[in-house]
Amino acid sequence: MHKPPGYRILDAESLRNLIAALPLSKQLWGKPDSWTIEEVGDGNLNLVFLIRGAEGGFAAKQALPYVRLVGESWPLPLSRAHYERAALSRQAELAPGLVPAIHHYDESLALIVMELLEPHIIMRHGMIAGTVYPRFAEDITTFMAATLFDTSSLALSAEDFKSLIAVFAGNTAMCKITENLIFTEPYTEAANNRWTSPWLDGHAALIREDADLKCAVSRLKLKFMGSPEAMIHGDLHTGSVMLTIGDTRLIDPEFAFMGPMGFDVGAVIANLLLNYFSQIGHEEAAGARDDYRAWILDTVESVWSLFRCKFLQRWEGCETGDAYPAALFSDTLGKAALARERRAFLDRLFQDSLGFAAAKMIRRILGIAHNIDLECIENTEIRATAESRSLMLAHDLMVNANGYSDIKVVTAVARQINAMDPCLSGS
Amino acid sequence: MHKPPGYRILDAESLRNLIAALPLSKQLWGKPDSWTIEEVGDGNLNLVFLIRGAEGGFAAKQALPYVRLVGESWPLPLSRAHYERAALSRQAELAPGLVPAIHHYDESLALIVMELLEPHIIMRHGMIAGTVYPRFAEDITTFMAATLFDTSSLALSAEDFKSLIAVFAGNTAMCKITENLIFTEPYTEAANNRWTSPWLDGHAALIREDADLKCAVSRLKLKFMGSPEAMIHGDLHTGSVMLTIGDTRLIDPEFAFMGPMGFDVGAVIANLLLNYFSQIGHEEAAGARDDYRAWILDTVESVWSLFRCKFLQRWEGCETGDAYPAALFSDTLGKAALARERRAFLDRLFQDSLGFAAAKMIRRILGIAHNIDLECIENTEIRATAESRSLMLAHDLMVNANGYSDIKVVTAVARQINAMDPCLSGS
Repeated sequence: MHKPPGYRILDAESLRNLIAALPLSKQLWGKPDSWTIEEVGDGNLNLVFLIRGAEGGFAAKQALPYVRLVGESWPLPLSRAHYERAALSRQAELAPGLVPAIHHYDESLALIVMELLEPHIIMRHGMIAGTVYPRFAEDITTFMAATLFDTSSLALSAEDFKSLIAVFAGNTAMCKITENLIFTEPYTEAANNRWTSPWLDGHAALIREDADLKCAVSRLKLKFMGSPEAMIHGDLHTGSVMLTIGDTRLIDPEFAFMGPMGFDVGAVIANLLLNYFSQIGHEEAAGARDDYRAWILDTVESVWSLFRCKFLQRWEGCETGDAYPAALFSDTLGKAALARERRAFLDRLFQDSLGFAAAKMIRRILGIAHNIDLECIENTEIRATAESRSLMLAHDLMVNANGYSDIKVVTAVARQINAMDPCLSGS
Repeated sequence: MHKPPGYRILDAESLRNLIAALPLSKQLWGKPDSWTIEEVGDGNLNLVFLIRGAEGGFAAKQALPYVRLVGESWPLPLSRAHYERAALSRQAELAPGLVPAIHHYDESLALIVMELLEPHIIMRHGMIAGTVYPRFAEDITTFMAATLFDTSSLALSAEDFKSLIAVFAGNTAMCKITENLIFTEPYTEAANNRWTSPWLDGHAALIREDADLKCAVSRLKLKFMGSPEAMIHGDLHTGSVMLTIGDTRLIDPEFAFMGPMGFDVGAVIANLLLNYFSQIGHEEAAGARDDYRAWILDTVESVWSLFRCKFLQRWEGCETGDAYPAALFSDTLGKAALARERRAFLDRLFQDSLGFAAAKMIRRILGIAHNIDLECIENTEIRATAESRSLMLAHDLMVNANGYSDIKVVTAVARQINAMDPCLSGS
């Protein structure tokens, strides 16, 4: 595997020395040996250190030359830190205050030292605890509308748009992970797959045998591989959201590239829906989380409707994009036609988003990487119940996406499925 | 403008000295001063020299650092020679015998020395003369099916597909010409536009005022800018075809990049249709070219139907593409579903092709660069008649593409329009 000269895997002490030599160490105050440094990476890929001094702290993320979850047998380029930094910088310009600030970047160490987000927690954990996040829908839709619209050819000149494609064109190893783990493996008998057996054996077989579903997910894969619509985060699940009641940050854009917008929107919707179905495993008594469930589905609706609204607003206020040149639509009829065209664009994006959401849900239940929302449910039959319902919705979303004309249809079907007996193999 | 070190504009004598110093000069035999060298470039962009000796000859194409048609005020990167050579090399592998062989390439001179195609002529000229080319439909569809399918993610691994995107990612200046001259300027009051006035004044205004049309062409532009489906030739009109009755070669792929497949297919269809409508200006008596007209429309039909057939055949015989992984479709149901999916893919590609064909027709009549098929008609009313009919078909193809379910509908409407009185402003 390729390691740039100067790369070495950091530990607390080597990181301490490194930070101590940087001007930013003054922000920590106190002597370097008074700082506390802990490694807390709970993701699948990287080292994450929290560094705290008397006056503040940093988070430091270092890419490893392999997948942390698996080990050296699965190499992965360090360049992902380069792309993460490129995406974070761009996102900070486009969506100020919604990503962690970068304080230091070391290309040869694949190291990003950034703002320590405290007392933020990973949204997934908050949702498992049943915490309502009243700002989330507003913030995530501001983030998505800004980063997706503003990096598309709807907003950019051809030159800038193509430059941005070039910036992220090399992040192919990360794309390949998505291509394999999301769009392919869950639909085959791949060694990496696992599911809550025996309960979901029937579901898994049904999905492997549904040829229309496999066509639909492959059509999405084709789109993922060949649709540089905008700079997408590429991994925008609720584990990439750190927040408090009053502040939301989107982290970890190491999968960023110029891809289909619906992949980000779908990721958000998918992970909210997975958590919705998981609530049966988190409530203390049946129905105790009904209000929370209602909030989640409200949030699903708001995510789409606010995103749509903000995306349209940006487009309406923008005359710089080369794709629909403003000069062609300056008269009254032109404005009206372009308004229709924008709505049609958003309708197509909605369909894409549902398809990608479905793919994201299925892979979290049948593929290699599962969600803690579901994984932390100890009773396997209850977990399988939540997973089975998730799969039912995802399966229908994928093959009948055209039937879901509105986000309220999605939430209504989710509610129905959540009230149904699950279809479990072992029961 | 950027000129690499060592670049100089060649003339007959400097080219003679350059060739004489190369091993390939032995193929010409005879002393260098016995060779005849003429500059014959009739395109808009480059110098083209024909070099003949006693035993053979070469064609040498040199890119100028500006648009030849306009002059130094319109700079254009020499790198287009690099991309032309990259495309020709790839096309030669994928569609052997259908492109000129490259004998020598000089990157710093932006010079490609290639096979001299004799007695081939530019297809456009042959069609103006009424020559039937019985091999054309077979050859162009073999070329398109091979170059488009085999460079797509339907055939390639993700790695190879993305490498190919990277190879052509820098050819943005050439794409920009297409974006401006095909998808934008004909729909605005651009200084570059011209048309057969006053006859087409009404048509030109109608097109500038049709907001749905402008949305449709902008949707195509969006697709052109952000759909790296395959390595497309990028300028596949009948002026990029050199042929005899028995041999067909596709030349001049300097606009090549990873773009939408329908752009190439549409270019072929558009240029056949433009020539079809132009026949009123080439026949000696009314109806004298009716058989030729019938051949052209037969060819339009064959271009689509043979392309579709060959593309499907390649797909059916291919298990290497990452987009629809073979492992997902190995059982009977999978094979049947994938067969349906392939047909749906080709249906979408047909719609794309008609849209791009329409855009190509409109720009040749209202934009900066016209076709000799129409331009050589000296009687402006007759020329305008042919152009008016071309615009009528193109306009309908663009806004009603969904209504054209089959290529036979296209040719039937073309036939109807060709029998109608044209709608001319001056008459």
